[in-house]
Amino acid sequence: MTMEYDLVPAGLARAVEELPLVDHHVHGATAHDLSRTAFEELITESGRPVPGWMTQFDSQLGHAILRHCAPVLGLDPFCTPEEYLARRARLGAAEVNRLLLGSAGLAHLLVETGYRAEELLGPSGMAEAAGAPADEVVRLESVAEQVAAAGCAADAFAGRFADALEERTRTARGLKSVAAYRCGLDFDPAPPSPAEVADAAGRWFAAGGGRLSDPVLVRHLIWTGLERGLPLQLHIGYGDTDVDLRRADPLLLRGLIELAEPTGVPLMLLHCYPYQRHAGFLAQAYPNVFFDVGLGVNHTGARSVALVAESLEVAPFAKLLYSSDAFGPAELHHLGAVLWRRAMARVLGGFVADGEWSAGQAVRVATMVGAENARRVYGLG
Amino acid sequence: MTMEYDLVPAGLARAVEELPLVDHHVHGATAHDLSRTAFEELITESGRPVPGWMTQFDSQLGHAILRHCAPVLGLDPFCTPEEYLARRARLGAAEVNRLLLGSAGLAHLLVETGYRAEELLGPSGMAEAAGAPADEVVRLESVAEQVAAAGCAADAFAGRFADALEERTRTARGLKSVAAYRCGLDFDPAPPSPAEVADAAGRWFAAGGGRLSDPVLVRHLIWTGLERGLPLQLHIGYGDTDVDLRRADPLLLRGLIELAEPTGVPLMLLHCYPYQRHAGFLAQAYPNVFFDVGLGVNHTGARSVALVAESLEVAPFAKLLYSSDAFGPAELHHLGAVLWRRAMARVLGGFVADGEWSAGQAVRVATMVGAENARRVYGLG
Amino acid sequence: MTMEYDLVPAGLARAVEELPLVDHHVHGATAHDLSRTAFEELITESGRPVPGWMTQFDSQLGHAILRHCAPVLGLDPFCTPEEYLARRARLGAAEVNRLLLGSAGLAHLLVETGYRAEELLGPSGMAEAAGAPADEVVRLESVAEQVAAAGCAADAFAGRFADALEERTRTARGLKSVAAYRCGLDFDPAPPSPAEVADAAGRWFAAGGGRLSDPVLVRHLIWTGLERGLPLQLHIGYGDTDVDLRRADPLLLRGLIELAEPTGVPLMLLHCYPYQRHAGFLAQAYPNVFFDVGLGVNHTGARSVALVAESLEVAPFAKLLYSSDAFGPAELHHLGAVLWRRAMARVLGGFVADGEWSAGQAVRVATMVGAENARRVYGLG
Repeated sequence: MTMEYDLVPAGLARAVEELPLVDHHVHGATAHDLSRTAFEELITESGRPVPGWMTQFDSQLGHAILRHCAPVLGLDPFCTPEEYLARRARLGAAEVNRLLLGSAGLAHLLVETGYRAEELLGPSGMAEAAGAPADEVVRLESVAEQVAAAGCAADAFAGRFADALEERTRTARGLKSVAAYRCGLDFDPAPPSPAEVADAAGRWFAAGGGRLSDPVLVRHLIWTGLERGLPLQLHIGYGDTDVDLRRADPLLLRGLIELAEPTGVPLMLLHCYPYQRHAGFLAQAYPNVFFDVGLGVNHTGARSVALVAESLEVAPFAKLLYSSDAFGPAELHHLGAVLWRRAMARVLGGFVADGEWSAGQAVRVATMVGAENARRVYGLG
Repeated sequence: MTMEYDLVPAGLARAVEELPLVDHHVHGATAHDLSRTAFEELITESGRPVPGWMTQFDSQLGHAILRHCAPVLGLDPFCTPEEYLARRARLGAAEVNRLLLGSAGLAHLLVETGYRAEELLGPSGMAEAAGAPADEVVRLESVAEQVAAAGCAADAFAGRFADALEERTRTARGLKSVAAYRCGLDFDPAPPSPAEVADAAGRWFAAGGGRLSDPVLVRHLIWTGLERGLPLQLHIGYGDTDVDLRRADPLLLRGLIELAEPTGVPLMLLHCYPYQRHAGFLAQAYPNVFFDVGLGVNHTGARSVALVAESLEVAPFAKLLYSSDAFGPAELHHLGAVLWRRAMARVLGGFVADGEWSAGQAVRVATMVGAENARRVYGLG
Repeated sequence: MTMEYDLVPAGLARAVEELPLVDHHVHGATAHDLSRTAFEELITESGRPVPGWMTQFDSQLGHAILRHCAPVLGLDPFCTPEEYLARRARLGAAEVNRLLLGSAGLAHLLVETGYRAEELLGPSGMAEAAGAPADEVVRLESVAEQVAAAGCAADAFAGRFADALEERTRTARGLKSVAAYRCGLDFDPAPPSPAEVADAAGRWFAAGGGRLSDPVLVRHLIWTGLERGLPLQLHIGYGDTDVDLRRADPLLLRGLIELAEPTGVPLMLLHCYPYQRHAGFLAQAYPNVFFDVGLGVNHTGARSVALVAESLEVAPFAKLLYSSDAFGPAELHHLGAVLWRRAMARVLGGFVADGEWSAGQAVRVATMVGAENARRVYGLG
């Protein structure tokens, strides 16, 4: 393994290695032990059972776990999946979480709590395991679904949702919309009228509530979120089987971005794979657009260097952030940081080795993307 | 040329070099000699005559022929096109085919026979030239067009087609749809009703039969193919001038993939350039989706390393296959294998040199992609 | 900086370095001095003011200016933005233009004069500063807007426009359409009827004229341009905030390309980022399609090597051209050439180092792309 950093100047490699990261979009780590089946289902975005003729360890993410997480659990890199899972089971979830999260080098976590939260550590549990402060990002659709579940007249929905959002976000640092999953990003970007909202809420309640997917309501949630004024995270691109990737292209958000521009609310485009160049264009064109390449970094493993490189093209460096989008196994929280550091060191180190950037510029940009931009946007001090 | 494999571990380079490949989608080699004009028209996907102010040898594929095929014909690499074509003519088509196919290192070929078959070697001729078994893949549209040409009442078409397909595929290993060429992939994915099929067949016959392009019939062929139960190959992305590349994005197949999932039939997305990342996402999300980057590997030549690298991102490694999609000059069959081996050795060797993968993992993945996945999906034993 | 060309054969590096370039699409350099604010607004495609919490120097283009232009102005590479702008101000616009343009190694410039021409050097000023001949490319929309501004009956518009275009292009080398900005590329590709044109002109004049954006008129201008017979440049992909990038995909032009094919007029797809692979496909499929990756090369800076590499995939090498698309600060004219040379040397040098191309093939392709293709298409002799 002596070749791996040959082209990266030592000072840059060390600076990126030691940089305390702000993970601006992450979910909780699983609080309980995981069977092999459960573990494999959590290291893929596929919502389907893993077919008997394959294993999810035969993937970039699987290889990255055996390479980078095995040593953290005291094993040799490139051990077998069986050895890895046996060690993981012997250590237990709490110790695994402490080992993997504790060594990720995190300075601050913004934890999105709106999806399967009952299985996961909440912000305080995450803070304890990571040894770093953790604040909350609130998912708009979850708040609305709770309002519906509590019972509400259709024409009272808008008011109740606004009140619930205010209450739920008193100490939150950001909001999140999963419009991409619920109706695709090709929705009418204008705020719906109160009558349209009441009508749509009526239809939703009449159908029994549950999963909110009516585009009118999805838009209403976004516009209520924009009024609330916290940075608004939007799921973009790659995700689980639920997403129609064609309708998750960030370029579809152009209308919303322009309408939202006067509010001054930062729009945080999450993940973006394979549309990272589209996101970079929007981040150059519009002052209110920011983005990251989380999730994709973990799932592309050894190829994450290409993804990170493509994120460093036309966007100003003040507009790009770090996230892991880890959900479930703490391996994902650990790898998000490890793979991002290695990819940034290689990409920026390559610019320096090519004579295109100075080492000082490289360290400065790594620090902006890894921490400073998030501190500024979310006011983390 | 001593630098070229500097970063690839020797054991991995040798393993990939010697791996017997299953080419799961290939056409026949041209059985007759070719003029320069005919040769140049077969090394581009353009359906137009080559303009007088250019030569197709000034392309990645042209350079790859002069680099890798010239030595097989006993010439120096990087000879001139004139020297190359003179030697090719002197040797004659049969010897050229034997030299180029015989040195491609193929273990099994699945030969698609539905396009201009009269100019090409069939499966048995291919088996003889390549020194490896060759089975057939049957093109749905060709079978349907033969049914129409034989004469058939509109309301008998569905039955006749099903019977003909059964008969035609007794020993076949797979089916192929060229929906992307005929109507684009943005068709209604649901199976059409018998009445719709009879109506569409009536319109087709009334117009004189010939090229089948009615979306109702294209869909009906696919659904009849799904009932037949053999792995179904679908042309995706890059192809000849006939294709509207916008309407050949694999993400357009999401509806069909989901409707076809209960049948258990493997959907084999072919070529996919430049949508290989889209195909990789579908292969991760859906158990019934597989893909390859054939055709594009040949036409991107020295850049095929980038294409192969992008195919190794989010798809599980059990979902990716090797194909050449060679058609016509045996140079294409030879280069498909040579360029894929070189690209895989470089990409996987890079992961190993970076310290991200073990050499054992690299050899295992090369073997899965180059042969084992195809053996499992097509039941090649 | 001794590492930067390690893998590029010395002869190839020198040949690319010394190649006299034809910049087939460029705008004028700013004739006057620029404040820091004005300068920063000209080194981004964003039409918005630069937010107070960032600087456009924190971008690939910003870094490239400090790396490559600072030494031309007598400063160390990687000086601070403040040092750079202070030196620039002291030298004055005329000297800065002379230094940066004069050292770009240009053999011929085709200057598009239809946008904010009053702020910029015209073709003769550019020729003087660059020490090379400069010809004009005429923007269709600007000529039409001048016809409208001069006053014209709706049913006389078509004739007046054709006459004005003939007059305006007596010595021009090409035409340019900004349909991508005005109505998106998803317009009906057929030529509109005279009645449709008169109707649309009537609506335009009734609304007060000004910015032409009616799709009927945009199409009419293109078809009048095709009749004029000069090579027709089309803005594609990346550009300022005005562009809806989704509607600037070159694949949307398939219908126009096929309808225009019988005219024999070369269609020059400009910029194309991030759709360079789409453009490459069209350039392979259709004899009348050519493309470049200008603009994106400057804005991706150290990453321009990736963009240039992707442009060298499926297109025949006779179909790719060099342009800077520089507009305003002469840094952009200089960097267009410097970054293209460095990217070509690295990409082609990589092919040679990998043993895939000969050094002679690499020099030949660099010469075709950098100069010969443009000379042939535009008849520059």
